[in-house]
Amino acid sequence: MARRRQIYEGKAKILYEGPEPGTIIQYFKDDATAFNAQKKGTISGKGVLNNRISEHIFTLLGQIGVPTHFIRRLNMREQLVRQVEIIPIEVVVRNVAAGSLSKKLGIEEGTQLPRTLIEYCYKDDALGDPLISEEHIACFGWATQDEMHDIADMAIRINDFMCGLFAGIGIRLVDFKLEFGRLYDGEYSRVILADEISPDGCRLWDMATNEKLDKDRFRRDLGGEVEAYQEVARRLGLLPEGLDTTVLDLDTHRKKREKEEG
Amino acid sequence: MARRRQIYEGKAKILYEGPEPGTIIQYFKDDATAFNAQKKGTISGKGVLNNRISEHIFTLLGQIGVPTHFIRRLNMREQLVRQVEIIPIEVVVRNVAAGSLSKKLGIEEGTQLPRTLIEYCYKDDALGDPLISEEHIACFGWATQDEMHDIADMAIRINDFMCGLFAGIGIRLVDFKLEFGRLYDGEYSRVILADEISPDGCRLWDMATNEKLDKDRFRRDLGGEVEAYQEVARRLGLLPEGLDTTVLDLDTHRKKREKEEG
Repeated sequence: MARRRQIYEGKAKILYEGPEPGTIIQYFKDDATAFNAQKKGTISGKGVLNNRISEHIFTLLGQIGVPTHFIRRLNMREQLVRQVEIIPIEVVVRNVAAGSLSKKLGIEEGTQLPRTLIEYCYKDDALGDPLISEEHIACFGWATQDEMHDIADMAIRINDFMCGLFAGIGIRLVDFKLEFGRLYDGEYSRVILADEISPDGCRLWDMATNEKLDKDRFRRDLGGEVEAYQEVARRLGLLPEGLDTTVLDLDTHRKKREKEEG
Repeated sequence: MARRRQIYEGKAKILYEGPEPGTIIQYFKDDATAFNAQKKGTISGKGVLNNRISEHIFTLLGQIGVPTHFIRRLNMREQLVRQVEIIPIEVVVRNVAAGSLSKKLGIEEGTQLPRTLIEYCYKDDALGDPLISEEHIACFGWATQDEMHDIADMAIRINDFMCGLFAGIGIRLVDFKLEFGRLYDGEYSRVILADEISPDGCRLWDMATNEKLDKDRFRRDLGGEVEAYQEVARRLGLLPEGLDTTVLDLDTHRKKREKEEG
């Protein structure tokens, strides 16, 4: 295989140039970070699971008419997506108080919010992805009013769909993060869903036990990270019972190869 | 004088029951706090100056049609205002980057913003008055959409007027904080400007020298606090040249009296 040009390496994914212009390959790593990368670790097999879970959710969202960057999954750890210009805003959709919201406003974790809350954070690791409002976005021109309107509409549709999807498999969708990008057609662009949707960026609580099935297991040193991600994939029908994804250790293989290639 | 019922003591003011129902007396203290009251001090004569400056600005705002709680000044440290239900949101209007905005978004202090920025903070000392967005306000019902619409409209009008007022006296209006309250008429209410407008809650920089004429002198240990507040009052035409407000030390008298009265 010809060596591909790496475009960007993030905390949990690597982006490579795709086979055709306007396409990108998203490679899902096992690396896990938390608290703005102050905490680092590896969840063996996570990349394989997130690739599958994100494929599944993006495909379903496409079927209800939410435009996404997803084209197709290529292999265990890679998917082909459309190249977009990422809008530098993390969109956080919350149904239940948890994490930074609970801390900031003194609301006990697990409290059902009076209504769904959309938060925006400025995507800048050096600044710690600070919470911003639509006023900041307009002031600094990070997105247009039209784009923000489309983003809020999509975020609400995605939330409705995902609440249903997870309710159907006994999981409470507490909150999740989305990223959007501009897909250009000549000088015009439209906003589509980008990045990924996986237990890395969602809070998913088992409805019966309140057990956390998401990255909070890593953030809070609860253990059982892989098992939690596997459980989500299994309930979504993506994992044959009993398959151990930790044996699919392509990520270590990639790192070794990259090291050898220098 | 009959002893009045104290309704509330804040960091810089005390509220007493007014002479008629629906009125309040605002007493301006010399106490100064910063960084969510972690830093405390006294700026001798500040209360006298802020009472006069706030009277002046609220009167002028009333004349351009911005509804305010201000009725009339009673004496050196007190003004009569309408009783309102304070909306628990601090409205911060910014024209130039400074303070928490500069820190949060990594923008150098003094940078002119591309457009005026309105920020909202949840008024809660224990939580450190955290930045919030209109989504949080709607989610938790802290104000209605109509109220927020009126607040944003008023904030922009107030900013336009105050930019002009201060430009006329060689001062750059960097940013300022507003509070609003609900004035009830039976079961109906409307939003009016409340609290105060003074160098305690504004950033005011001399246009020629960039010298700070506001509470940042106290926050940042620059010294010359009283002189800065006096300079603002003097330029606004509120202070006969040479009058030393530090001799008007009624606040110490009040504290002594309260101590004696137990």
